[in-house]
Amino acid sequence: MNEIKIFSPATIANISCGFDVLGCCLEAIGDEMIIKKSNTKGIQITKIIGEDLPLETDKNVAGVAALTLLAHLNFEIDFGFEIEIYKNIKPGSGIGSSAASAAGAVFALNELLNKPFSKTELVAFACEGERLACGSPIADNVAPAIFGGFTLVKSTQPLKIIELPTLDGLYTTIIHPQIEIRTADARAVLPTKIDLDAAVKQWANVGSLIHALHTNDHELFADSLTDFIVEPHRSKLIPDFDLVKQSALKAGALGCGISGSGPSIFTFSKTLQDAENVSNSIRKIYSKNNIPFHIYISEINTKGIKIKI
Amino acid sequence: MNEIKIFSPATIANISCGFDVLGCCLEAIGDEMIIKKSNTKGIQITKIIGEDLPLETDKNVAGVAALTLLAHLNFEIDFGFEIEIYKNIKPGSGIGSSAASAAGAVFALNELLNKPFSKTELVAFACEGERLACGSPIADNVAPAIFGGFTLVKSTQPLKIIELPTLDGLYTTIIHPQIEIRTADARAVLPTKIDLDAAVKQWANVGSLIHALHTNDHELFADSLTDFIVEPHRSKLIPDFDLVKQSALKAGALGCGISGSGPSIFTFSKTLQDAENVSNSIRKIYSKNNIPFHIYISEINTKGIKIKI
Repeated sequence: MNEIKIFSPATIANISCGFDVLGCCLEAIGDEMIIKKSNTKGIQITKIIGEDLPLETDKNVAGVAALTLLAHLNFEIDFGFEIEIYKNIKPGSGIGSSAASAAGAVFALNELLNKPFSKTELVAFACEGERLACGSPIADNVAPAIFGGFTLVKSTQPLKIIELPTLDGLYTTIIHPQIEIRTADARAVLPTKIDLDAAVKQWANVGSLIHALHTNDHELFADSLTDFIVEPHRSKLIPDFDLVKQSALKAGALGCGISGSGPSIFTFSKTLQDAENVSNSIRKIYSKNNIPFHIYISEINTKGIKIKI
Repeated sequence: MNEIKIFSPATIANISCGFDVLGCCLEAIGDEMIIKKSNTKGIQITKIIGEDLPLETDKNVAGVAALTLLAHLNFEIDFGFEIEIYKNIKPGSGIGSSAASAAGAVFALNELLNKPFSKTELVAFACEGERLACGSPIADNVAPAIFGGFTLVKSTQPLKIIELPTLDGLYTTIIHPQIEIRTADARAVLPTKIDLDAAVKQWANVGSLIHALHTNDHELFADSLTDFIVEPHRSKLIPDFDLVKQSALKAGALGCGISGSGPSIFTFSKTLQDAENVSNSIRKIYSKNNIPFHIYISEINTKGIKIKI
């Protein structure tokens, strides 16, 4: 195989209670990438369609992730790779745009090299792309992109990713307000110290959310989607967050929170009809302000990155 | 039925990563209680064998818990109850001595009244006994005593208890050093604010521990038994804690931590042989100091409080 075309999905990180550890993978939103073997050694980003992103390999998250993988082979292969990226996920949207590029690149290289690396190793390589994008090698988006479904970043040193079960019939409605929240700002609003009491409530919810996934308990899942730590701070950066959340829950959403570091807001619903009702309700809220936005509805993608014919 | 004899088990609360939310129930250690219907309304503690504890109903955790249950019936029953308590669990040992008395009392009353209350309601009543014993209505010992197995206190308001699966073949070795740690002191050493970074690691472990229980994964269970928040502070109150932990892990324990607020130290092992090896190793450590101690080995009790013939 000399060429591969893949779909690299958007992802939701944090999922309310699981700051920095939980994530899930989306079915309906994602980039396409074509990766070809090349006679020129190393990595070339030959095309980026849809967004104005750097083509220089060492300034591009896909490039950096791919180089990290090659470094683990000591660059001892006598060919290189060309990467074309067709971006559908807006950078800075909070649904794993950089993660999709980084994860897609290393996934594709691994396929073209006959899979020398495990999924966890691929996550580690992709994290280096995340380091370029946001300053730290966070795994909570790349893990669900590569593993699919819901994932838990059990630890980062050593990197340990746990694949969690997915609820039957789960839909997400996501609104992406087209505002910029710099990752640095999203980090800066967080306290370095938190109340022990709030932390106890948070880890009780992480535990119950994982139990809910294992027992296919939508009610408990919904009841676990509370964030006592991060959302109270970051929600202030997102216009009308509280209104959107109230409206989504009233329209039947199981839960609502900030996707990654925002500005996208995710909701979960049990049926497509509910997801559409939620979409309509939050569309009304955002139509009243002057901020452009996109709304997406997606099922959960349990496979992760997919090879296209 | 006019009389019931029960075994009310000891419990381990916190379980390293799950401060204030996780607990599990023990098979081999527990109190016995005999509860009889009486012509005298209300609750009488008629006998306490094994420990010097108050017989006055409103000063006894079993009495207070039982009264709370009766209050929820508006005291509208034309008989009362006599409670005999045969204590085997040392008060202040950190393995749920007060919880066993409180939980046992409300469990027995519920049986004699033909089960008007759910297990969660019984936990709530027993929590009032815990309030008397330690100043707050903590559920992390009474929940596993009543439900059995491993439990997660998902929330306290409203009270929501989750029954978790148990690993196959799990043994605990517990050492109870006969020193007094006042609950107030054990609480006082805890910071009210904690590092967000440490909290993230902690809730990742809570999540992975619950995943490990669902997937019967002893290795992941062991790998999740780390406490970044509480143990570093409370372990200083327990002589030779670090030595015991090192020795237990070296002898094959899956993990080791402080049971409840101490001074007991729990360990988990995969086989009875391992549990006995752990027992021998920590016995050697404690035999070198001048503190009297008890060591117990127990399986996990998946049933909770048991009715004896």
